Amino acid sequence: MNELLKQIAQEESVQELDLLTSFQNGRVAVFKAPPNGRALAVGENLRVKVNANIGTSGDIADEDFELKKLEAALSAGTDTVMDLSTGGNLRAVRRKIVEASSVPVGSVPIYEAIVDAARRRGAADSMNPDEMLDAIRLHGEDGISFVTVHCGVTLSGLSQLQNNPRVCGIVSRGGSFLARWMRANKKENPLFERYDEVLDICKQYGMVLSLGDGLRPGAIADSMDQAQVDELVTIGQLFRRARQRGVQAIIEGPGHVTLDQIPAQVMMEKRLCDDAPFYLLGPLVTDIAPGFDHITSAIGAAVAAAAGADFLCYVTPSEHLGLPDADDVRIGVLAARISGHAGDLVRRRPGAREWDEKMSRARKDRNWGEQIRQAIDPGLALSIRRKTCPEDHETCTMCGDLCAYKADSLI
Amino acid sequence: MNELLKQIAQEESVQELDLLTSFQNGRVAVFKAPPNGRALAVGENLRVKVNANIGTSGDIADEDFELKKLEAALSAGTDTVMDLSTGGNLRAVRRKIVEASSVPVGSVPIYEAIVDAARRRGAADSMNPDEMLDAIRLHGEDGISFVTVHCGVTLSGLSQLQNNPRVCGIVSRGGSFLARWMRANKKENPLFERYDEVLDICKQYGMVLSLGDGLRPGAIADSMDQAQVDELVTIGQLFRRARQRGVQAIIEGPGHVTLDQIPAQVMMEKRLCDDAPFYLLGPLVTDIAPGFDHITSAIGAAVAAAAGADFLCYVTPSEHLGLPDADDVRIGVLAARISGHAGDLVRRRPGAREWDEKMSRARKDRNWGEQIRQAIDPGLALSIRRKTCPEDHETCTMCGDLCAYKADSLI
Repeated sequence: MNELLKQIAQEESVQELDLLTSFQNGRVAVFKAPPNGRALAVGENLRVKVNANIGTSGDIADEDFELKKLEAALSAGTDTVMDLSTGGNLRAVRRKIVEASSVPVGSVPIYEAIVDAARRRGAADSMNPDEMLDAIRLHGEDGISFVTVHCGVTLSGLSQLQNNPRVCGIVSRGGSFLARWMRANKKENPLFERYDEVLDICKQYGMVLSLGDGLRPGAIADSMDQAQVDELVTIGQLFRRARQRGVQAIIEGPGHVTLDQIPAQVMMEKRLCDDAPFYLLGPLVTDIAPGFDHITSAIGAAVAAAAGADFLCYVTPSEHLGLPDADDVRIGVLAARISGHAGDLVRRRPGAREWDEKMSRARKDRNWGEQIRQAIDPGLALSIRRKTCPEDHETCTMCGDLCAYKADSLI
Repeated sequence: MNELLKQIAQEESVQELDLLTSFQNGRVAVFKAPPNGRALAVGENLRVKVNANIGTSGDIADEDFELKKLEAALSAGTDTVMDLSTGGNLRAVRRKIVEASSVPVGSVPIYEAIVDAARRRGAADSMNPDEMLDAIRLHGEDGISFVTVHCGVTLSGLSQLQNNPRVCGIVSRGGSFLARWMRANKKENPLFERYDEVLDICKQYGMVLSLGDGLRPGAIADSMDQAQVDELVTIGQLFRRARQRGVQAIIEGPGHVTLDQIPAQVMMEKRLCDDAPFYLLGPLVTDIAPGFDHITSAIGAAVAAAAGADFLCYVTPSEHLGLPDADDVRIGVLAARISGHAGDLVRRRPGAREWDEKMSRARKDRNWGEQIRQAIDPGLALSIRRKTCPEDHETCTMCGDLCAYKADSLI
């Protein structure tokens, strides 16, 4: 691990000793490398990272389609991917993704337990606790670097839900199926009850445990309610137990959240979870923009990143509407990277302001080659410029001779 | 005006008396209706509004193209448009836009003075102060509802620029040409020196004066620097003079700003300008994402709106790269509306949370017709859903049978 931390410290331009301290205190997590890729760290004082969710669904289960999405995510500069497959041969697609990925791959093993139980016995509620744990083990065997497990969905949280009804109830797939199972079987969440076993599996396979927020709010109306906060308190305790057992963990966060609550969400996570790395799905700052949820999410994620979030799960334009395709994936990754970078600028992460300044100087100099090179998506920037502009044009077609940079340079 | 305020109070679900007070104190501005359209108010306690910039350039001067962009902006729900034409027959295109617009039309008359001087005498610096004032009058005659005039670009501001050099200098078109003129002619800004005449013209034609920020930062590195703040102090004094002379005014703001500075930018404007309506161009929270500047801007605009900004100028995907087309305009308006709405949610504007809740309930019920109807862009939402999903599908192709809403409803 020490060699790896050294390398990461170098890549991130941070002091090795600081990184070591953060790592030892659980404030930085290191995802192991996939067989053909590199390891990655998330957390305190590091660049904000971005994850892209890919994976089949029951409706669209096409391995090649998913591998194309993987490729799109990697080209767009994602830091990790999660395989959330729920359709077709789950193991086959997972192995192909792990094999083909140059970045750490995460997963949500409970999906496999749900799908298997439904396929074998016709009902997801029929899955048994051993099968839930076996699914985690299976993902470990397949080289997964981090697993989302919804250990924090407890009877206590569900009673909070019952006493404080929501507009949208449970919107986490893992969370909703676990809740159904708990109610159908009148039992506590096995992933909570047998948490030590979950930890041991993670330890055995060197997987980081991502403590999933099964009760995250999925509507602006439900943001930061009793059930969400109750679950976060539980998750904080689970995080401490993970560290005590020598397992790395990160914390997952919402969801749909109004803009003003986002800094409080981050603060609450940092306080209740001993400054553990915070991994956010969104947050989406409004519910009303399906088709633009990469934007509603980019807004929330940027504010979260500026406030201290460490790891951003992208949201694509097809969120709430359908399974994303490769282009959705590309746009989702880039939108999330923009948010992460906006946060890095605020937190003055090494290299962040320098990048913006390079772009600004290129603009000032009307150096178009350099502007394209410095763009987060050079291909897109070039294609938009080319749409209206001959190659050797000194300005752009927005202002032409009225270019302010040109006017200013003539002063 | 009283009938109009009554109507606006009703549309905005605010108390008529509160609106009247805000209006009388200059904290709300009312843009007069174009000949075939409706009036609009911006400011305190009102819904955040959105503006779309359209207009020809020296490189692309096609009236029909601009009318298509106007149509795209209106269909996407813009609250105002600004005609920033600098190419072709400026007056002809302006008159057509004013004629065709159902929302108030703004403009930047100095562009016309610059273009005219360059055409007549070969040099923009040759424009004379009378021509600058004449251009404003001309726009008044043509039915423009609000005009951006860069009265705050003063010798004092320019000396701040000189003493505190920027990466990107002046990025405002009007600002940079005025600065050139001032330096070439060794004179104070005529729009500052003859400010009372500017006010009288606005009064004569019932135009709102939008006090342009000619020295706004155009790079993250330049944000909130001496020149910007110096100009804002001047603008605050000009705002007071406008009110004393019975002219409505609003204040324009940056630009390129790091996320953490945005609330301070809004606070500073509100403090220095007696809570005048604040009209922001962006802010863009990073420089590095040409092609995605509707997103970098949506992030900044949402944070600004939540912090108290009143009026958001959109930014399109073609910003920094070329003149936008109709589709860029559509996307720009929708991104800005999302930001405004995210702000309205935080500020609990009447109807804002209700809209989100309608969408959330439709999601919970898997009522797809209602989800599409409630979407900010129903056409886009429907087309994304249809891409992967048969019409009568109960869930979407993201989760299929693993739909959390479905699972939750079965608990």
